[in-house]
Amino acid sequence: MAELKTVLTEKAAAVDNKLKELMELKSDELAPILTEAMSYTLFSGGKRIRPVLSLLTVELLGGNYQAALTAGSALEMIHTYSLIHDDLPAMDDDKLRRGKKTNHLVYGEAIAVLAGDALLTYAFQILSELEIADERQVKLINLLARSAGYQGMVGGQVLDIQAENKQLKLEQLQKLQQGKTGALLKAAVLIGVYCSDYQQDQEKALFNYAQNIGILFQIVDDLLDLTGDTAALGKEAGRDEELNKSTYPSLLGLEGAESAAREYAAAAKASLASLSGQTNYLVDLVDYILTRKH
Amino acid sequence: MAELKTVLTEKAAAVDNKLKELMELKSDELAPILTEAMSYTLFSGGKRIRPVLSLLTVELLGGNYQAALTAGSALEMIHTYSLIHDDLPAMDDDKLRRGKKTNHLVYGEAIAVLAGDALLTYAFQILSELEIADERQVKLINLLARSAGYQGMVGGQVLDIQAENKQLKLEQLQKLQQGKTGALLKAAVLIGVYCSDYQQDQEKALFNYAQNIGILFQIVDDLLDLTGDTAALGKEAGRDEELNKSTYPSLLGLEGAESAAREYAAAAKASLASLSGQTNYLVDLVDYILTRKH
Repeated sequence: MAELKTVLTEKAAAVDNKLKELMELKSDELAPILTEAMSYTLFSGGKRIRPVLSLLTVELLGGNYQAALTAGSALEMIHTYSLIHDDLPAMDDDKLRRGKKTNHLVYGEAIAVLAGDALLTYAFQILSELEIADERQVKLINLLARSAGYQGMVGGQVLDIQAENKQLKLEQLQKLQQGKTGALLKAAVLIGVYCSDYQQDQEKALFNYAQNIGILFQIVDDLLDLTGDTAALGKEAGRDEELNKSTYPSLLGLEGAESAAREYAAAAKASLASLSGQTNYLVDLVDYILTRKH
Repeated sequence: MAELKTVLTEKAAAVDNKLKELMELKSDELAPILTEAMSYTLFSGGKRIRPVLSLLTVELLGGNYQAALTAGSALEMIHTYSLIHDDLPAMDDDKLRRGKKTNHLVYGEAIAVLAGDALLTYAFQILSELEIADERQVKLINLLARSAGYQGMVGGQVLDIQAENKQLKLEQLQKLQQGKTGALLKAAVLIGVYCSDYQQDQEKALFNYAQNIGILFQIVDDLLDLTGDTAALGKEAGRDEELNKSTYPSLLGLEGAESAAREYAAAAKASLASLSGQTNYLVDLVDYILTRKH
């Protein structure tokens, strides 16, 4: 078996290629500056963790790899739109993202808002043009809409705004994070499931896995914001404290948060145990997320 | 046959009821303020012209009325999100919409951005939960994504921003408007078509009808901005001139624009001529749009 790092690099490259293909918008484009602004953040060096999760999952279940690649790329567009809107002056007012100027600093606020809107809309167009059975298509569209909407990512972002300058309880923080970052990570895994002929117990096991790595991912993110530095992160470190946001380390202490991260990592691995056969790279990925440095 | 006005009032009320039902988000809601902000602009007194077009079309073709009502309501959410984002300080910086404060003046810019995002996302969720054959569902989702995206509404909005303080040529203005306002009006009619068992010549005739009333609608909008007053319009009059935007009257003169409006109205009616049988209220609607006062 190839090393996880090699696999992640290969899969991320496949996602990049698919995204490039999808962003060749050809003759029906109205305003080239819009495509440029959409592509600017889409190709700013993201690790493609979400579509890679879709690919590892679809491989595990022996499903439709091409469909998962395209649907995962649509999900990456939704993730990217959320970053563009989240960085706006009225929101987190961030200047740096992956070591580059944020979208609105390059294209202005109006185009940044519209580039986000267009990425979100295009994601649903891509899903509606996916080559897979209609019934699966509808299921995937429903999954992404529910994960990205008022009951998922956008709902979590609103909670995040309301939480500034407030001390949250742990369960409030978890509710916020499960919307803001957890929902799309879960959707990433479920894309892999829904592009396969899956058994219900497989869906359940992978759902639990996704739930656990969603929380793990966020705890590590909070720890990195606290202990990392701007150069390594590619975004300003210490922003959570600056914005007075509740985080896992602020609620649990540094050691408490580190210990929680290890617990969720163990739970994620345990979720996979019930799956018969190979669990391929999804197990190794847990340690990768636990020990990531940016 | 009942008078057109009565029919429009009844249909708009049916849309309002459907929207209210759809906005009862129940237990999966994360942040009540988000739903409140979504509803604020959604229920600010819009005339529901887009979903009403879907309903008149589906009645003409004897299709699935309930599906058209729900899909038309999803389209109204997309229209509403575009108004919220368009009114933002970074965009048109509007203070009034339908006689009420704009969304960001009530809820702040961050929530206004997210309320728009959530309405757009929810529209696709609603379509993915529509009770109609999967294949039709996918067709409707594709229609709305293409109409609202980079090649439709959002693309037109970017052209609109780029056009400020510039003198456009007529064909540039038409391209802009066909994206910004035309695409959703066309989609509204096509929702009625796709919720029915239609013949290709019916689709073509109604497509042409929609194309013509899209332009007609915009010319009248431009004329009203120039000649109407703030109280009647429910939004500030004279904004086009203030923002130095090219409009049909600024390019064709007042009389030229009025004459163009009459021509597109005639063309819209002519498009319907090839349809066999009753063309119900779609004909009368043309005059209604031509002579509207707000």
